[in-house]
Amino acid sequence: MRFDWTLARPILARTPGVLRALLEGLDENWTHLSYGEGTWSAYEVVAHLIHGERTDWLPRLRIILEHGEARPFEPFDRAGHRGEDYGTSLPARLELFSRLRRENIAQVDGLRLTDAQLDRRGVHPALGPVRARELLSTWAVHDLNHIAQCCKATGFQYRDQTGPWEAYLSILSPPDPR
Amino acid sequence: MRFDWTLARPILARTPGVLRALLEGLDENWTHLSYGEGTWSAYEVVAHLIHGERTDWLPRLRIILEHGEARPFEPFDRAGHRGEDYGTSLPARLELFSRLRRENIAQVDGLRLTDAQLDRRGVHPALGPVRARELLSTWAVHDLNHIAQCCKATGFQYRDQTGPWEAYLSILSPPDPR
Repeated sequence: MRFDWTLARPILARTPGVLRALLEGLDENWTHLSYGEGTWSAYEVVAHLIHGERTDWLPRLRIILEHGEARPFEPFDRAGHRGEDYGTSLPARLELFSRLRRENIAQVDGLRLTDAQLDRRGVHPALGPVRARELLSTWAVHDLNHIAQCCKATGFQYRDQTGPWEAYLSILSPPDPR
Repeated sequence: MRFDWTLARPILARTPGVLRALLEGLDENWTHLSYGEGTWSAYEVVAHLIHGERTDWLPRLRIILEHGEARPFEPFDRAGHRGEDYGTSLPARLELFSRLRRENIAQVDGLRLTDAQLDRRGVHPALGPVRARELLSTWAVHDLNHIAQCCKATGFQYRDQTGPWEAYLSILSPPDPR
């Protein structure tokens, strides 16, 4: 399926509600624990998503549209959310993410991107040339990746409780290095 | 974290709403395609979950409580949903799953399971002896596993659209054999 903003947009618009349905009000034993050293809890994933709304997707889209390949993106700091105050409660973080996402979608709507703009290239500091349409596609898939990660972090807290069924539950396998 | 029905119950109760937030109303190009030969679309995952509500979790819990190890479970047919009419539209399937899940949670609530009952063992046809508490823990983790799988099936439809970012998106890796 080829990128189309009208198809990617609903994925992006749904994510705050999906995370609310999945996480809001759950016991912190589910939401605040990771699935192994160096991995994130669902609570931390939400901070990462907030950080991306602020510093990653829209700023990079604007760099592509305004500067093309003349100005590489700033590197995105995967640990950058750790120094930020994104609210201490999970509901506060979900609310902030929800607002930023709504604003960012409205920004993209307002750009009314043409095919020529979607084909424009920028330069990723590690990956090299990337197109605007690839950035917007990645934004949507990245959401789904992190919703799945929240499921993994949550489910992992019962890893020792499933007995021999652990063998059937791929989500309980060791953390993916990526 | 040790199994406790009051902790597992909210995970189970949330799943229909999570799947609605994630899938309901999305274009079928997202929801009705799998992520490789022998894998399921999100649409098919919902049928599998319905089949589990009908033939897997509660029936097996009752066998443990009533017969213990004297009567092994019926094998669960992972393709069993294919012969069943669980509604042709995704919203109809989500509605059916939602109703069955509500009923099954109410059934477990009504059992007021004691620690002794949770420790009771039954016999899984492939895995051997399993306890009631392991079955209930697995039911919850199985939900999260399949929500993550829905994310994978959905995101996979943009696999060819993310360009070099594919390398950063673990959800786009080849299907897990389990």
